[in-house]
Amino acid sequence: MANAMFFQLLTVVPFLSLLLLSPSLALNQDFCIADLPRGDTPAGYPCKPQANVTADDFYYSGLATTSPPAAPFNVGVSSAFVATFPGVNGLGISAARADMAPGGVVPLHWHPLATELLYVLDGTMACGFISATLNKVYTKTLRKGDLMVLPQGQPHFQYNLGNDTAVALSSYSSSSPGVQVLDFVLFGNDLPSDVVSKVTVLDQVQVKKLKALFGGSN
Amino acid sequence: MANAMFFQLLTVVPFLSLLLLSPSLALNQDFCIADLPRGDTPAGYPCKPQANVTADDFYYSGLATTSPPAAPFNVGVSSAFVATFPGVNGLGISAARADMAPGGVVPLHWHPLATELLYVLDGTMACGFISATLNKVYTKTLRKGDLMVLPQGQPHFQYNLGNDTAVALSSYSSSSPGVQVLDFVLFGNDLPSDVVSKVTVLDQVQVKKLKALFGGSN
Amino acid sequence: MANAMFFQLLTVVPFLSLLLLSPSLALNQDFCIADLPRGDTPAGYPCKPQANVTADDFYYSGLATTSPPAAPFNVGVSSAFVATFPGVNGLGISAARADMAPGGVVPLHWHPLATELLYVLDGTMACGFISATLNKVYTKTLRKGDLMVLPQGQPHFQYNLGNDTAVALSSYSSSSPGVQVLDFVLFGNDLPSDVVSKVTVLDQVQVKKLKALFGGSN
Amino acid sequence: MANAMFFQLLTVVPFLSLLLLSPSLALNQDFCIADLPRGDTPAGYPCKPQANVTADDFYYSGLATTSPPAAPFNVGVSSAFVATFPGVNGLGISAARADMAPGGVVPLHWHPLATELLYVLDGTMACGFISATLNKVYTKTLRKGDLMVLPQGQPHFQYNLGNDTAVALSSYSSSSPGVQVLDFVLFGNDLPSDVVSKVTVLDQVQVKKLKALFGGSN
Amino acid sequence: MANAMFFQLLTVVPFLSLLLLSPSLALNQDFCIADLPRGDTPAGYPCKPQANVTADDFYYSGLATTSPPAAPFNVGVSSAFVATFPGVNGLGISAARADMAPGGVVPLHWHPLATELLYVLDGTMACGFISATLNKVYTKTLRKGDLMVLPQGQPHFQYNLGNDTAVALSSYSSSSPGVQVLDFVLFGNDLPSDVVSKVTVLDQVQVKKLKALFGGSN
Amino acid sequence: MANAMFFQLLTVVPFLSLLLLSPSLALNQDFCIADLPRGDTPAGYPCKPQANVTADDFYYSGLATTSPPAAPFNVGVSSAFVATFPGVNGLGISAARADMAPGGVVPLHWHPLATELLYVLDGTMACGFISATLNKVYTKTLRKGDLMVLPQGQPHFQYNLGNDTAVALSSYSSSSPGVQVLDFVLFGNDLPSDVVSKVTVLDQVQVKKLKALFGGSN
Repeated sequence: MANAMFFQLLTVVPFLSLLLLSPSLALNQDFCIADLPRGDTPAGYPCKPQANVTADDFYYSGLATTSPPAAPFNVGVSSAFVATFPGVNGLGISAARADMAPGGVVPLHWHPLATELLYVLDGTMACGFISATLNKVYTKTLRKGDLMVLPQGQPHFQYNLGNDTAVALSSYSSSSPGVQVLDFVLFGNDLPSDVVSKVTVLDQVQVKKLKALFGGSN
Repeated sequence: MANAMFFQLLTVVPFLSLLLLSPSLALNQDFCIADLPRGDTPAGYPCKPQANVTADDFYYSGLATTSPPAAPFNVGVSSAFVATFPGVNGLGISAARADMAPGGVVPLHWHPLATELLYVLDGTMACGFISATLNKVYTKTLRKGDLMVLPQGQPHFQYNLGNDTAVALSSYSSSSPGVQVLDFVLFGNDLPSDVVSKVTVLDQVQVKKLKALFGGSN
Repeated sequence: MANAMFFQLLTVVPFLSLLLLSPSLALNQDFCIADLPRGDTPAGYPCKPQANVTADDFYYSGLATTSPPAAPFNVGVSSAFVATFPGVNGLGISAARADMAPGGVVPLHWHPLATELLYVLDGTMACGFISATLNKVYTKTLRKGDLMVLPQGQPHFQYNLGNDTAVALSSYSSSSPGVQVLDFVLFGNDLPSDVVSKVTVLDQVQVKKLKALFGGSN
Repeated sequence: MANAMFFQLLTVVPFLSLLLLSPSLALNQDFCIADLPRGDTPAGYPCKPQANVTADDFYYSGLATTSPPAAPFNVGVSSAFVATFPGVNGLGISAARADMAPGGVVPLHWHPLATELLYVLDGTMACGFISATLNKVYTKTLRKGDLMVLPQGQPHFQYNLGNDTAVALSSYSSSSPGVQVLDFVLFGNDLPSDVVSKVTVLDQVQVKKLKALFGGSN
Repeated sequence: MANAMFFQLLTVVPFLSLLLLSPSLALNQDFCIADLPRGDTPAGYPCKPQANVTADDFYYSGLATTSPPAAPFNVGVSSAFVATFPGVNGLGISAARADMAPGGVVPLHWHPLATELLYVLDGTMACGFISATLNKVYTKTLRKGDLMVLPQGQPHFQYNLGNDTAVALSSYSSSSPGVQVLDFVLFGNDLPSDVVSKVTVLDQVQVKKLKALFGGSN
Repeated sequence: MANAMFFQLLTVVPFLSLLLLSPSLALNQDFCIADLPRGDTPAGYPCKPQANVTADDFYYSGLATTSPPAAPFNVGVSSAFVATFPGVNGLGISAARADMAPGGVVPLHWHPLATELLYVLDGTMACGFISATLNKVYTKTLRKGDLMVLPQGQPHFQYNLGNDTAVALSSYSSSSPGVQVLDFVLFGNDLPSDVVSKVTVLDQVQVKKLKALFGGSN
């Protein structure tokens, strides 16, 4: 029975007769499940046809677990961005989860396209971000149930302060926040070591050592 | 003669010679007529090629009349949203019209994606909306020529206060405002009656009675 | 009784007790009535305190009539933009009305910040706009009940084609669409006639003649 | 030491000398902590002066607990919207938490200005929303660690399916999502019972009974 | 080595092992090079597949020169809008360049979809725009290195005040600002001369004379 | 003479009489010059009263020169963001200029809130940015007149490749793009050296050495 038809049709049949009709062409889009194979646009992916949409399209179980933590950061991460959770397409929200083993760290990174709102699921952690305006660091010790907001494009980090795994659930103000991890930016690609050094004044020995760790070349 | 070319081309011909050329590739999009069959994106439908666009694409006559009013609400409605009027695609505006017979009602509903600006074409009507902030109702008696604004997502209603048909023309701050009619939300689908009752505390007898009226099941 | 409180408060009192409380501090803003004297921001005017808001703030009767038509265009116009109808502040919508006497014209103009959706309340009129992309004019003859959409920033016009007053109701995709009437742009200010001529190639005699008509100087 | 100064100043002193200066006037705003007493604008609250901002402004502990569950819904709710957590101002994100006792329900409601992304902290729950487009209900059984996205303006609900408290953490694509709880919309205000009945076709007996429960009058 | 993978994958392999993997499916879009042949959407063009993107996609040399200036305006113009520079797609920015010979003029025009920020590369010029609000003209004499901002939709002009070529580089707050040159609007299309005269009160003789110059008909 | 009045007033005087009136209250805002002392909102600064606005408010001469280049980067920078050029407030555009002495470098940095469009005013430079998606670097050699676009939030750099000063003029898709210079992020504040090392795996010796250079402590 078509609610949408109420506003949709210019018909010559009385309103009550609408109640006898089957659902028909959509009046509008209440949502837009990403049809990933058709490729992106600046506003997100094209919409999967509504007739094919089921409740499963709005559901994602991938944040129930993460990958096991491993060196050098001892952190496991999983994400629910549009590329893995097509249901958030066009809706301006997504999520991720980080499990820090004791001593574990979410290394310095930022999201070019979103603010992060972090909620502590378990454990105790330090969480901070660095603002350029006054060149100031804002750091808090967070415990289970605490929230911290990390504004768009500002570099931030977390690290475990306890003896058990610390777990954070983060939501983002975009279905695709992007993520720039500093170590990959500096050391994970083929930008020549002398150029990295020139544009950062890091010592070349340091650069080459970390290129080896993070898989960079040149 | 191509205005667009003025800013478009890096050429080696003098400017005056442009005046001799035929229109060519568009510099930019002044509009984006929805090419409905290609399917939606989060920002609207892909654009029909400009070479195929005519004045008819910007024109819609479907609000000159509505469907005849019928029970239970005695209202006829027609709409000019992007799905019926492709010319508004991407432009953040659309319209609809409701004709209430004497005693007629536009039942409680809301638009998830747009504010409504209602203009009275004819007759006298009550118009109100319910704000959650202070749990307050804002109602006015409207006469021919009056405007009332109904903010995005707030449930609202109109009903005829006179002895003649009352007619409202509404515009919306979206090319596809969406519409959630409360009775269809509660009673027009297959959500089981006991669940409807559980999440609203409506009596199940009431729920079943209205499911029969609005075409719901379970 | 406060709906807003449902999500608002972290309290130690049970939920039912909320039902005994009076409405309290707002959880969020369902609307933002312009507090005009406090001055504008890029997103609109500051909000009038909610406690002072009444149904009248959402209501405007100024489009029920217009000024009498007069030479040279024989058109009367009234508008419901945020400066006169503070209820539309921040909501991305507004309206205006034009009554063209027989022979009357809405002169060539454009809206820098909004698309216009025109609905014919009465009479028959020509309505057109000029697109830069292909330097093309899109014109339609419109009759009572017809809609035409006029995309943002495109210059457009209407003129009466009948023997009776023709009336248009327009809505806009902004609470403050702006309006640039060509004749006032060219002839209604103190831009020197020789500069007007230089940047338009209009003859200076023509420019001076129309400056006299539209109140310009120099 | 002022990072901001790097791009900010047109000076006649060499760059290195900047390193000797104290932080000065901000170049731009990395964030905008709500200065609530100064009142809202359509884009959010004015910013607290940056010199007064501390790490505490980005931190909120109010979602570590909720109010005790109570009849009729047996749910406790707490929220971190801009009015309680000024740090999210202007950043397009916020959060809330609902603890459903066994048998508890988050009643049917919607958010006029935001999509919700729900994450299950504990327990098992049903979660569903109702789309107007095809008048269809999308429901899932959710377990700890599951996500479900609930698109903007679509009415949704959760209820506990287990024998222990079920807890959901929700994030929103706005710093102030708004919330319309259906029962408060229909029964929590002073809209006369006969009008509620007229615009919903609910029986008046039903309406009066629930007005008594939810604190409405008339 | 995939930075993106850090947040992307829910895997059962340890984090370090990621360092051994090749780049894989993108987590998100850092950019969206326009794939022009696939046609536009209201938010821009679909994205070229990232695997095919090279540094050349972010580069454009077309503003290094312009077309030679020619009558009647003695100006050469080149532009870097999305249609010619696909790298700016979806990024809200673009540029153009105008070289005015001595006596040269950028004729009165406006951009429907963008604000312009003009920087003087060479020479001395007058630059002004006309605001509708108070019907006022804001004009400045600009020299090398000066900036002037020309708000969205406001008609503006420049003309050379010196004896050498004056050159302006303009950037725009849209990847496709659009451009309406007044002379082409009025005289460059097939809008009948009597209609142009009616909606502007320009003399028909003037209209026909300039239609001949700008390539219009009727 | 008031163009704005054309759409503004509901009057009982004929239209022609409007031509006799002086300009009156503004209908809408064509622009919004930042009134900096009143403090920011999430959408920008409140507007200076229009009656006080002059052509000078749209003009800025601060990019005609920069500070002299100095160690360690040998670059001089000046900016025209809203804090120094209030005329761009709310208009989504701004600019900056960098003059690199021979051997000079614009160190690695990013803009949290804007895309950059760089135009080479003089000289030859390398310009590159690092995308997280595929952990790839896009670098070009740029000469006078060349453009390169640097997407929002992506870290980028330039350095002089010639023997003369190389000069870049950059425009931004925001009136306040923000800027995070990597060296100030890592070494210019009071984040303890061991924490910097922990969240980046940079050696502590390296961190302490650069803290000394960039004015950081701890």
